[in-house]
Parts: sequence; C-alpha cells; structure tokens
Amino acid sequence: MSDQNEIKLTRGVPATEAFPTEAIIECCEKALRTYGDTLLQYQPAYGFLPLRKILAEETGAEPGQVIISNGSIQLLGFLAEILLSPGETALVERPSYDRAITTFRRAGMTVVDVPLEEDGLDIAALEEAVERYNPRLLYLIPDFQNPTGITTSRSKREAVLSLADEHGFIVVEDSPYRKLRYKGEDIPALRQLNASRVIQLSSFSKLLSPGIRVGWMVAAKEIVEKAVQIATDTYITPSMLSQGIVYEFIRQGWMPNNIERLKTLYAPKLAKMLTGLDVNIPEGSWSHPQGGFFVGLTLPDGVSGKRLRYYAQQQNLLLSDGCGFFADGDGSRFLRLPFCALKEYEIGEAINRLARAIKPCN
Amino acid sequence: MSDQNEIKLTRGVPATEAFPTEAIIECCEKALRTYGDTLLQYQPAYGFLPLRKILAEETGAEPGQVIISNGSIQLLGFLAEILLSPGETALVERPSYDRAITTFRRAGMTVVDVPLEEDGLDIAALEEAVERYNPRLLYLIPDFQNPTGITTSRSKREAVLSLADEHGFIVVEDSPYRKLRYKGEDIPALRQLNASRVIQLSSFSKLLSPGIRVGWMVAAKEIVEKAVQIATDTYITPSMLSQGIVYEFIRQGWMPNNIERLKTLYAPKLAKMLTGLDVNIPEGSWSHPQGGFFVGLTLPDGVSGKRLRYYAQQQNLLLSDGCGFFADGDGSRFLRLPFCALKEYEIGEAINRLARAIKPCN
Repeated sequence: MSDQNEIKLTRGVPATEAFPTEAIIECCEKALRTYGDTLLQYQPAYGFLPLRKILAEETGAEPGQVIISNGSIQLLGFLAEILLSPGETALVERPSYDRAITTFRRAGMTVVDVPLEEDGLDIAALEEAVERYNPRLLYLIPDFQNPTGITTSRSKREAVLSLADEHGFIVVEDSPYRKLRYKGEDIPALRQLNASRVIQLSSFSKLLSPGIRVGWMVAAKEIVEKAVQIATDTYITPSMLSQGIVYEFIRQGWMPNNIERLKTLYAPKLAKMLTGLDVNIPEGSWSHPQGGFFVGLTLPDGVSGKRLRYYAQQQNLLLSDGCGFFADGDGSRFLRLPFCALKEYEIGEAINRLARAIKPCN
Repeated sequence: MSDQNEIKLTRGVPATEAFPTEAIIECCEKALRTYGDTLLQYQPAYGFLPLRKILAEETGAEPGQVIISNGSIQLLGFLAEILLSPGETALVERPSYDRAITTFRRAGMTVVDVPLEEDGLDIAALEEAVERYNPRLLYLIPDFQNPTGITTSRSKREAVLSLADEHGFIVVEDSPYRKLRYKGEDIPALRQLNASRVIQLSSFSKLLSPGIRVGWMVAAKEIVEKAVQIATDTYITPSMLSQGIVYEFIRQGWMPNNIERLKTLYAPKLAKMLTGLDVNIPEGSWSHPQGGFFVGLTLPDGVSGKRLRYYAQQQNLLLSDGCGFFADGDGSRFLRLPFCALKEYEIGEAINRLARAIKPCN
C-alpha cells in the first residue's frame, strides 16, 4: 500500500487555494504607494495605526488598547512575560493549543488543564481548579477550538466570566477561527460580554495568510503599553508591510467576501470528514464543530496513538501525536483531525485509511 | 528661537528617500507570482530557503547555518537565550549598541564593557576583562560601529580572534552597516578570518528597508538548530513575504546599484557633519568614520549631556541620552550623532545649534 499518495493529517494550515494572491499583490502596491514612507521605516512597536484603529473599532476598544505583532503567539509570549510572577498558574482547556502550553511554560508558569466538554469547559472542574490553584489567568479558545473544534456555549462563557470576576483572574480569549463559522449562530465573544476581564488575541493567519504574520491583541491600555515595551526590546518594529497589506485589504472592503469564499471552500470539507467518521469509525467519539479547522477524535478504548501512528504510516497516512495538546502529556487516545488543507477526496481517503489503521490496534 | 524647525539628532534610521519603493512593489509582485504558495503559508522557522542559500554563499557557509528572522535583534535575543548559563558574562564595546546591552540583560547575562579606541577595542583592557570575567561571548560591531562609527582595524580583529581561541569565548559580530563604506578599503569580516569562532548577524534594514524586518544570522549548525527551535516556539514562522521581496531584489541584480545609490546619498552627509564639527566644535573629540550611520562625539570636559540636552531643546534640537550605550550608564559626555536621515542643510544647522548649546554648559 506504500504506493498510495501520502496524506497528512498533521498541521492545521489553510488550503493553498485559500490565499487571495492577486488581491494581496494589489494591496501591497496600493499600501506602498500610499503609506510607503511609513511602512518601510522603523516605527513604534504598537503596529500600523490605521489597522489598529479598525481593530479597535471592531472590538469596541481604543486604538491605545491594540497592539499588532508578527503573529498572535508572539503576543501570547509577551503576555505571559507581563503577567508572570514566579510559581503562578495558567489554566487551559484539556486539550488545548500545544503552542500556548509551551509559551506559558517558557515564561515559567505552571500549566494546569481543565476538562473540555462538548459545550466548553467543565465548569465544576474549573471552579475546583480555580479554588485549588488561584490562577493568574485562564487561556481558552472559545470558538472552534484548537485542537477539538469545540465552541463554548453562551451560558458557559457567562459562567467562566463570573468565576473570573469572583476570583480575580484574567481570561485570555484566543479567537483566530471565530469568523470561520460554517453553520449556526455566532455567540458573543467573551470580551464582548466583559471587556474589563478579558484579553483578546486573534490573527489574520486563517482569514488571509499565515506567511505574512499579522496577529493582534486587545487589552487594557497598561497591558498593551507593557507589551509594546517588550516588543520594542524584542524586535524594535513589527513587520510593517504585512500590516499595510492587511489594512488595504480591509479598506478595499474585500474581507467579507474573502471570508465567504473561505467558508464555501471549507464547509464541505468539514461535512465530508464528519460523514467519513460516522460511516467508518462509529466506535470512536468526536466533536461536531460548526466552523474552524479541526475535528477532535477520541479513539476507541484500548487504541493507543503510538501503535495507531505506526499502522497509519504503513498506509502513508501521517497523524499528529496528540500528547502535546495535554498539559500532562497524556493524550494518547486523542487525535486532532485538520481538514482545511486537504482536498475532499483526500479527506474521505484519509478517514478510510484511519479506520483501517485502527483495526489492528484493538 | 523656538520657531526654528525641529531637528532630531536622535534615532539612527535610514533616509526616507533611501527606500526603493517602486522596486520593492515590483519585487513583491514577482515574489508572490513565483513563490506565493510558499510565502503566504506557514513555513519552518529557518526562513525562505532561496534567500538562505544566497546568504550562505555570500558568507561561505551552508544553508543549514543560516536563519532569517524579523530583524536581527530578535536573533540576538535567541542567541542570548541559547548561550546563557546563569551568571555568565557578555563583553561589549564601550560604548555599544544600547539594544544589544538590553537584550543580554533580559536574558539574565551580566554585561561588562571594554573601552573602544579609534581603531577598535583596547586589546590590553580586553585581555584583562577576559581573564577577570571568563566571558561566554564578546559582542562587537566591527564596521562603522553603533554608536561611534568606529571600525576595528585588521590587526585588532586578529588580536580579538586569537584571544577568543585562547580563552574559548564566542565572538558575535554584528555587521548591519558593513556594506555602507563611503571611502577606504574593506577589512575582512571577523567571520571571514575565523569562521569557527564567530557568529555573524546582519540585516537588510540599512540596505533596503527596516520596516520589512529581515535580519539574519550565520552560525554553527547546532546553534542555528537551537535558534530555529526557539523561533518556532516564539512566532512559528517569520514574515515570509518580506524575505521573498529581499530575495527577488537580489535575484534581479538590483542590490549593488542600490548600495551605490545609498553611498552617494549618505557620503556627503557624513562629510558635512565632520566639517561642521571641525569648524564649530573644535574643543570636542569625535570619530572619523568611513561609512555607516553615526559619528560619535565626546563632549568637552565639564559639559554634561543633561544640561546640553536642555539647551539644545531650547533651540529645537533633539539629542539622545548617551547613557544607554554604556553598560554602567555613565555616558553623560557621549553623543551619538546620526546623519543619514537628515538633509545636508539640516546637518549643518544641527551642528551650529549644538555648538551654541554647548557654550552655556561650560
């Protein structure tokens, strides 16, 4: 079977055909013609003011509450550095975004995870963890979570926020997939429900291009000022041209259509994956996302990820190790299934191969 | 006199007219048409391979020894993190680049400075510092140093390298101004003299544009691999489009002409500044750079920078605080005079105002 084409169910990247390359070329030209002297020069580490104004307006904040960086994970790193006191705890979802866990650990934080249910965090478990660890912050991805695809319900968002108010911890809301909803209704962002308690991060990596590296953070002015100081010490100025391109893309009014195009591209892929799981892996359990990049699959009892990866590789199917998504590393039965970068026929074939690889593991 | 136009002798930034904006637009278009799928996507943190190959060839290294990042100061941060063991010492020139000092300190290093003479470090003092502090690394800017404009002579480069060999410390050579020589002959880079002992950093900020943020490092493969790991954890992927633009600019063969254009633009500014100092501030002492962005002025005995800045401001002349360039903060008699971003008539006027501001300080 090794002459089959390799299929990668590993990294959560956009489809190549998602990139509006010609429009980006046009935006680059327009941005440089209009703002070239600014975009090509050293600038304050806050980022490009016209884009900050747009993001501020969109999130109901002041421009002074917005910093734009080379991707949002760098901002999460700054935030960890700002909020860190030795020995403090960051709570995360179980499972959570592996790079976020790594970022908190690099900053010296202790990472504790709280089980995620089909509609968001297990609130009783969260309350227990809050009382036990007195965390400095809770990091979560409420919309189409990475790695599970799960969306936190409105009532759980409110429960999280009232716990945050009561116990005085900060909620860090990471929302890179929020605008990629393929069905159902938007739920208000945590920051919309309680701006004073929530720091919001997001990026244009999934809406436009990850290679241009434009991520942003909205927070209290004092937090943003500290982030700007660290950013200045770290890289002086973020990549300005990229920010000019994003600004011009939005200014042209092209973002809503682009997002619709992405939804049209990605929605059938998600549907295909869910159908494939229904038909081929009925003994597993998985999330039923309404958007985003991922389906989270919990393998049948007794199937270990390590053996599964071996049998999958025999069929030229590459799977991620799920352990990185778990703060304690114990994610051997979890599989993150990214669907955006694959063709529909590849998704069907990938799930077929996955089903065949599970068999000998039982 | 407050109705005079303000003149800033503060930040060392390129002139706005130095930016080849139209050529950059063309490069962006060509790069995206040719490599769009790569440049717009997540990529390994090494950076854009075609550009890494060019830099490797130019420095006599393998592509695996080259990492490209969002400006070179971010790479210096990674390097400090890689080389750091608690309590270790970084030696720097006195004065040195303030952001480098900050970067080493953020990584927990102790920074010790060694006096800089007209032709490079005081070698006897360096030897003494090496014996006393057993440093992990020596950071220097051998060509047209920031903040003094001083170039290290060939014999001092060799002396530094033989001390490094003897005592086993690493030499970090930062060379962003190296290609901007307005007169005299090139001196071999330290890395050309001893590749195994030297890590070289540089960037395209002064040759093309700082706002696109493209800096690079050449080092041993093991060091680069560690830097890539930290870069991956920090920002996943560097700003790829910027690297594609730089690659295309070089591939078109436009860099040599652009550098010649910059020399023609900047050389008369340096000459104007040196003449102005000769005529107006004969009681000071200053460097006589043959390239780069800065002249370093040591104020006459008894003139303090703080009072001087006050009198200068009265005349709408903004001066930097020199203290940041000194590891112990004691740089009150030092002034960094950047000349690239000013018009020639502004340089003459700035030195006139500086002379007038010095008078009441005596």
